[in-house]
Amino acid sequence: MIDLRSDTVTKPDEAMREAAATADVGDDVYGEDPTVNDLEARIADRLGTEAALYFPTGTMANQTAARVHTERGQEVLADRQSHVVKYELGGLAQHTGLQVRMLDADRGVPSPERVAAATVTEDLHRPGTGLLCLENTHNARGGLAIDPEKIAAAATAARERDVAVHLDGARLFNAATAFDVPITDLTAPVDSVMVSLSKGLGAPVGSMLAGSEAFIERARRTRKLLGGGMRQAGIIAGPALEALENIDDLETDHENARLLADGIDGVDGFDAQDPETNIVLADVSGTGLEPAAVVERLRDRDVLATQFGPTTVRFCTHRDVAREDIDATLERLEAAFD
Amino acid sequence: MIDLRSDTVTKPDEAMREAAATADVGDDVYGEDPTVNDLEARIADRLGTEAALYFPTGTMANQTAARVHTERGQEVLADRQSHVVKYELGGLAQHTGLQVRMLDADRGVPSPERVAAATVTEDLHRPGTGLLCLENTHNARGGLAIDPEKIAAAATAARERDVAVHLDGARLFNAATAFDVPITDLTAPVDSVMVSLSKGLGAPVGSMLAGSEAFIERARRTRKLLGGGMRQAGIIAGPALEALENIDDLETDHENARLLADGIDGVDGFDAQDPETNIVLADVSGTGLEPAAVVERLRDRDVLATQFGPTTVRFCTHRDVAREDIDATLERLEAAFD
Amino acid sequence: MIDLRSDTVTKPDEAMREAAATADVGDDVYGEDPTVNDLEARIADRLGTEAALYFPTGTMANQTAARVHTERGQEVLADRQSHVVKYELGGLAQHTGLQVRMLDADRGVPSPERVAAATVTEDLHRPGTGLLCLENTHNARGGLAIDPEKIAAAATAARERDVAVHLDGARLFNAATAFDVPITDLTAPVDSVMVSLSKGLGAPVGSMLAGSEAFIERARRTRKLLGGGMRQAGIIAGPALEALENIDDLETDHENARLLADGIDGVDGFDAQDPETNIVLADVSGTGLEPAAVVERLRDRDVLATQFGPTTVRFCTHRDVAREDIDATLERLEAAFD
Amino acid sequence: MIDLRSDTVTKPDEAMREAAATADVGDDVYGEDPTVNDLEARIADRLGTEAALYFPTGTMANQTAARVHTERGQEVLADRQSHVVKYELGGLAQHTGLQVRMLDADRGVPSPERVAAATVTEDLHRPGTGLLCLENTHNARGGLAIDPEKIAAAATAARERDVAVHLDGARLFNAATAFDVPITDLTAPVDSVMVSLSKGLGAPVGSMLAGSEAFIERARRTRKLLGGGMRQAGIIAGPALEALENIDDLETDHENARLLADGIDGVDGFDAQDPETNIVLADVSGTGLEPAAVVERLRDRDVLATQFGPTTVRFCTHRDVAREDIDATLERLEAAFD
Repeated sequence: MIDLRSDTVTKPDEAMREAAATADVGDDVYGEDPTVNDLEARIADRLGTEAALYFPTGTMANQTAARVHTERGQEVLADRQSHVVKYELGGLAQHTGLQVRMLDADRGVPSPERVAAATVTEDLHRPGTGLLCLENTHNARGGLAIDPEKIAAAATAARERDVAVHLDGARLFNAATAFDVPITDLTAPVDSVMVSLSKGLGAPVGSMLAGSEAFIERARRTRKLLGGGMRQAGIIAGPALEALENIDDLETDHENARLLADGIDGVDGFDAQDPETNIVLADVSGTGLEPAAVVERLRDRDVLATQFGPTTVRFCTHRDVAREDIDATLERLEAAFD
Repeated sequence: MIDLRSDTVTKPDEAMREAAATADVGDDVYGEDPTVNDLEARIADRLGTEAALYFPTGTMANQTAARVHTERGQEVLADRQSHVVKYELGGLAQHTGLQVRMLDADRGVPSPERVAAATVTEDLHRPGTGLLCLENTHNARGGLAIDPEKIAAAATAARERDVAVHLDGARLFNAATAFDVPITDLTAPVDSVMVSLSKGLGAPVGSMLAGSEAFIERARRTRKLLGGGMRQAGIIAGPALEALENIDDLETDHENARLLADGIDGVDGFDAQDPETNIVLADVSGTGLEPAAVVERLRDRDVLATQFGPTTVRFCTHRDVAREDIDATLERLEAAFD
Repeated sequence: MIDLRSDTVTKPDEAMREAAATADVGDDVYGEDPTVNDLEARIADRLGTEAALYFPTGTMANQTAARVHTERGQEVLADRQSHVVKYELGGLAQHTGLQVRMLDADRGVPSPERVAAATVTEDLHRPGTGLLCLENTHNARGGLAIDPEKIAAAATAARERDVAVHLDGARLFNAATAFDVPITDLTAPVDSVMVSLSKGLGAPVGSMLAGSEAFIERARRTRKLLGGGMRQAGIIAGPALEALENIDDLETDHENARLLADGIDGVDGFDAQDPETNIVLADVSGTGLEPAAVVERLRDRDVLATQFGPTTVRFCTHRDVAREDIDATLERLEAAFD
Repeated sequence: MIDLRSDTVTKPDEAMREAAATADVGDDVYGEDPTVNDLEARIADRLGTEAALYFPTGTMANQTAARVHTERGQEVLADRQSHVVKYELGGLAQHTGLQVRMLDADRGVPSPERVAAATVTEDLHRPGTGLLCLENTHNARGGLAIDPEKIAAAATAARERDVAVHLDGARLFNAATAFDVPITDLTAPVDSVMVSLSKGLGAPVGSMLAGSEAFIERARRTRKLLGGGMRQAGIIAGPALEALENIDDLETDHENARLLADGIDGVDGFDAQDPETNIVLADVSGTGLEPAAVVERLRDRDVLATQFGPTTVRFCTHRDVAREDIDATLERLEAAFD
């Protein structure tokens, strides 16, 4: 079975398992887990922030950031296709009572002009804007890598208006890889950033939220409220530390994605978007089949992909899929849709 | 002073004041105010619903409808420019935790296809869609009157998907007047409707929420939660009953709006949208002035209008502005921007 | 029919109706209703606060105060029997996400020691205490009048700990009457106070929230959020101004309550609590009947009272019940339970 | 250092670390982690429920249960000293808008009469009661073990009134050990139960929520909303499975607690409550010191305990504290307070 549904399916390797077995641990609710503390320091250092905090999931980290950055009754700006809007069960409204002003932004990042136009100053009838959420790479739009200038332009427009900026960087290491820039080029313009360790890097569990010390101090309390105050979390923070060694391998995933997209494009009825990172979106309307039927036919040949919209199938490359798996996938695809 | 800021500024006339002075009253929290009961019955009858409920404001009636129609964690579809999104302080998220999927709809009403595409079935990652909110006439888009077919098409698309439909009809009598149709043509396709009595009709206070008996029973409890359970409300329901006599006069407001728009168009630098009801939006960018400056200059000549967007000024006709006030407004406008 | 269910059933008299008919009005959302402005100034002056704001109900005013005084995630201290806990549909939690630490306080007001013990400093596991709610007179405990010293002691204990204090004074004029003190003796120790005008004073609609200018400015926005931004509210603020003339009459209601309690005590099976203001709680367990059956039997004789707990019936005197109605009530009561 | 602050500080042993290193894993958001699935099946079987779900923390499991069991606007009955009220940051109100009716219950469990009296039927002014939360053992009251009859009596009183019952059984294995009964005697009367694996049993991370299949299906979605949808969670579920082997060892912790309490009682100024499980509460007012000072003095001698109220210090025994550590603790205590 070749599993291209998501990079979340990556399994811990031997080094990570060894790290789990040997991690030095303590009670992280008391701040006493040395492995967690080490991971948090390492991430803060790498992302260029004062502090960082370990979370069981990226969703919790995103929701925490939104709660900490805003005051009661404010509004959030976010792309309509962003994870925080589409895939977090309406948490911004449900947890924190925030109205989301959904933007339809080119590549998922609004222009400075758009940020300016969408920012509302609090008045008698209107919530004020409290937060701009960005996403990089942009999952639902096909793993788009947003360049530092575009991030900075949007963030600057927000911050000039006293609007905080949170970056959902679940796949931010992929973006830095795509541009071959230090990841700090992508984090410098924003107030807080979430990065996931359990996607392309392969850690079993965990995402990090990074920002100023004051921000992280408040985030720690919100993490507790949401039920994220784990105990001997070093058992999973250890593997996550190991996962940081895998950053350089992301380039291989991107190459594999390009190979896969090229191959898919050659199959009748398939039209693949040029991948910028490790996600390939293929329009399958030319096959005359629903995406669900395409996914089903591939599953019959031991290839797993994801239905992703009314005419689209998503393929995601990752470290548990090798070059020869890509070749095999294309062979099976051709055979299935011959 | 000619006040064209809004039809909310209309003052009660002598008949309404007499009604306030003589209304038969009781404690409406106990359901014992005969004047309120009469008003509720009259509105239900006129709108073709089983029941209706009196509210201090339309905002409270809209928020109540959304809360009653939805379950925890659902999503609401609404036009980005709708009152419930723009002018109710994010109440859907703040009161009820609802995420709003903002649509950018032609004339503020989504096509059936758009409703279908935006409706989400609840899954592990996504809220389900629980409500479609429509607005008629559409205030922020310039008092657009939405025809019965368009309302019915959107509502039917929603209801076929088990999504309830609420109609913000703050100015629904204006819409019925514009099309010269029975108002029930506009209410029949939806599950609930709010109409305001304190705008063009001139009542001092109050809006009505109408729908099924079961819906109104639940709305009564939500009204209490929001703090809308007034006591001897017959004092204001009496004038509201009188205000219902004013429906035929709305046509005059619409004529005045057309005259006003024509006149404004003749002034250098002003470009007025053709009014469909009693609202005139004028683009003032041709004057080289900010809307706030235009409003200021008019105020200096005893004409009140409203800044309404980055290049727009809104003028609203109503029963306290006579034909000669329109003429005077145009004279002063010409003089001011000569 | 003699209606002793509540002082909320009081109907506007001729002077109030005349005031409704003649009130000078404007759009109060714009702050332009002169009668509302007059009422707000009069109340602020009388209660000794910087500012005041008119609300359609006391529930909305209480909920607004709690929202303005607190930050996200704080806790509120309130007597278990207080209106804000028992009769506002859980609004503190529902609107504002506040956890209420319910106290069981002697006469409904916690001692300073109890306030100190219940105040929690925010930590990783616990919400901080943000507000103490008091109530005077205390409705559910039988119209108890809380003296200025007791209010001041509780309030001071809270404020010394940076906990704001809101006083639900729906019947605060009754308390001031009971002690024959200036009402400012009762309001001086707290940060905000709500008084109702539609209970014993007889106004048809309305309650006031009073406090500092900064507090009222924020309250105005929360009032809009809750749907309390009415338009030509002078029509009901006018009668409310008239109702302020009735304060001296409350003493008559208190006398009537004492007469009623004395008489009730003489009826077999009835045990009336000594009234301090205009509320009489009678334990009816001695009759061998459920309170609902007692209320029913009285209703058959044209006397209305309220079931109020598992063994209690409440009688409430007010300006629409004269001395001879009290006599008639006692006659009918004796006849019914002979 | 002898750490008696909490049983949450227990560290995974070699068997657990080995289990982490070798666990068969998959993506648990897709329900494909075989170790998690195994753990969930094992727990459901042991607790006698249809299904169970793995959570990063007990707080998240408790909050999820409350959300799933209730409808919007309901009220929860819970002991004032319960974890869900005291130590979860007001989450019931903050996440789900639930008002908690705090009870002061003997041993933390209300009598059936108290449950009956506190249950409110929804009406126009009042939230209806939707949930009764119980806790066993009861942490804040000193690790009290609540017997099956008392749990059943309270639960039955609630369920007869259509009120669901959730049991916070973070230390339920301790309660079953204390009574030497099958744990199902304690879970049979309730609708849902949370058990923690990271306290006395020693797992590094994780708690379980158990109940009917329909309940768990809805809980899975709420877990995602709260940010608890972890990926290759088998890495921590594996050690948790190992931890289940430690249940029989809890009796040793209880013996150690009794020894510790006896010894503490012999020290001047200390008054220890008789422990029923693994928690010892000692009143230290006889020392003339604040609890914080007592804790500090112990820390200076390498014994860690917890300040736990204005005159109380808590000691908690667990598997990482051996009999000789108890002896050493007592020696140091005597030396410190000689």
